[in-house]
Amino acid sequence: MHLKRLILATLTVSVLTTSAFANEPIQPITVPTNINSAQAELGKKLYFDPRLSKSGFISCNSCHNLSMGGTDNLTTSIGHNWQEGPINAPTVLNSSMNIAQFWDGRAADLKAQAGGPIANPKEMAFTHELAVDVLASIPQYVDEFKKVFGAEKITIDEVTQAIAEFEKTLVTPNARFDQWLAGKKEALTADEEAGYKLFKESGCVACHNGVAVGGSMYQKMGLVSPYKTDNPAEGRKAVTGKDADRFFFKVPTLRNVELTYPYFHDGAAKTLTEAVDIMGRLQLGKQFTTEENAKIVAFLKTLTGEQPSFMLPILPPSTDKTPHPEPFVKK
Amino acid sequence: MHLKRLILATLTVSVLTTSAFANEPIQPITVPTNINSAQAELGKKLYFDPRLSKSGFISCNSCHNLSMGGTDNLTTSIGHNWQEGPINAPTVLNSSMNIAQFWDGRAADLKAQAGGPIANPKEMAFTHELAVDVLASIPQYVDEFKKVFGAEKITIDEVTQAIAEFEKTLVTPNARFDQWLAGKKEALTADEEAGYKLFKESGCVACHNGVAVGGSMYQKMGLVSPYKTDNPAEGRKAVTGKDADRFFFKVPTLRNVELTYPYFHDGAAKTLTEAVDIMGRLQLGKQFTTEENAKIVAFLKTLTGEQPSFMLPILPPSTDKTPHPEPFVKK
Repeated sequence: MHLKRLILATLTVSVLTTSAFANEPIQPITVPTNINSAQAELGKKLYFDPRLSKSGFISCNSCHNLSMGGTDNLTTSIGHNWQEGPINAPTVLNSSMNIAQFWDGRAADLKAQAGGPIANPKEMAFTHELAVDVLASIPQYVDEFKKVFGAEKITIDEVTQAIAEFEKTLVTPNARFDQWLAGKKEALTADEEAGYKLFKESGCVACHNGVAVGGSMYQKMGLVSPYKTDNPAEGRKAVTGKDADRFFFKVPTLRNVELTYPYFHDGAAKTLTEAVDIMGRLQLGKQFTTEENAKIVAFLKTLTGEQPSFMLPILPPSTDKTPHPEPFVKK
Repeated sequence: MHLKRLILATLTVSVLTTSAFANEPIQPITVPTNINSAQAELGKKLYFDPRLSKSGFISCNSCHNLSMGGTDNLTTSIGHNWQEGPINAPTVLNSSMNIAQFWDGRAADLKAQAGGPIANPKEMAFTHELAVDVLASIPQYVDEFKKVFGAEKITIDEVTQAIAEFEKTLVTPNARFDQWLAGKKEALTADEEAGYKLFKESGCVACHNGVAVGGSMYQKMGLVSPYKTDNPAEGRKAVTGKDADRFFFKVPTLRNVELTYPYFHDGAAKTLTEAVDIMGRLQLGKQFTTEENAKIVAFLKTLTGEQPSFMLPILPPSTDKTPHPEPFVKK
């Protein structure tokens, strides 16, 4: 009888928990359980290691700063030799949930993405070969790669695999909205809940849905009315070559959007208020009132989850054989 | 009787521990106990916050990287707009033990130092007023400053005080050499111990002594033979105005010197081997043999202590009122 009641209670909880968000277009973040922790630990060091750049100054964390929502909070990023980056740095947080990586989706996954900035002359301005040479000159890295991958030689494939594995850990569960989804109704204020209702009813949710509240599709920037920008990025067209894909960009995640300002692929919207207004007009043909806008913004701020929590990694020192960084060499 | 024996035993241990290093010119690092932890926690955030720079890209940690021995491991640092810094960035580790701050000692203490780079047009290129404006626009900072300092208004004085308090926590105890000093003779190899003997007998210890193995005096770079460099820094002369102080620099700490390459105020020595050779010839009039050099280098590597260990700080987000960073505005 006691057992029966327990089973019944468990079933009830389970049903309640499920039904709490089963019909919602947004699902709560769950923490991944299939992480290779040895790879992720190595990847964490690499993520913070500026020796993967030509200058010895820029690491993954420079533009995808984990103290700052996984972004640099700049309109476009600063690259090697203070070059102005072409596009707004998207957050690395929850990026494992994206359909593909980069605004135009040109990398299939995090591993394919990780190699990009290292070799991009406007970003870290290094080469994969030189990056591997640096790591191979550092015995502690050599040992750790060997331990983690079982191979004698460090390869860029292992480097990007380790970074990607670390990035998979960068999820932000337990946002107030997720608590609300799970049934804790007091987790949202009335305005925040009204904002969510507006977000759904106005059609925002057509693109910003799923666990990441985005990241699952491409959509045209300027769907109803054209988007005006000086930024030359053409979006998916650069990948597919099709004119029809011009200005189609990956719909960004709205998770932690409170932290990932400024907004859009060109970083032109400085505030959430501005971003919501522009999205309403250009994507939905809808002019939100000041009150509606404020409610949607209030809802969006409930998507801020628990930020990555880990010890600052200590990097193994270079040796006499390590190639020197070249921050001021122009070529 | 039992108590008497205990007291005797305690006394013996105490005498042994003290006598183990009482006659040595280097003392072990002890962890400070007089830290204001609320100030230090706030200071940690500020130390990692690039919004204290004009670009929104450069934080204290950019050039005094706590993943990398509290330095940037560059010859001279990269500043705002990729400007080439004038001098090698000294380590922040154990810097509370320095007689004064900067290579020329122009700042009396860590608090006086902390304001320098923020307002230096070649470094963070901001102003103290603008830095305070940014912080004052962020409610979580306002609340924390109020809690920590009890004042309504954020001031640059509080900002630098908090950063300095955090920096006081950045000590690196328990190096193998400190373990050896404390009586654990097996903590050093025979070569390392021989290196220490050479270090003492050759006269290195005349300047590199005390807890920080340096940092306690100014000394002329090129004491016996002149030091040749393209770096225009004049050292203490820039502070005192006296010709006699030309090329006098603060003797750098050798704690964690394995991590703080490259060496000297101009960052010209890439390796410890090179640095030891030049120091021997120019400061002591002594040409170390390859074997002697190697032993001294082996000893120096025993000065690597426990690195700072803390969670990566999460920074409070900017608000709609926060002034925007200006990475690409030239003026």
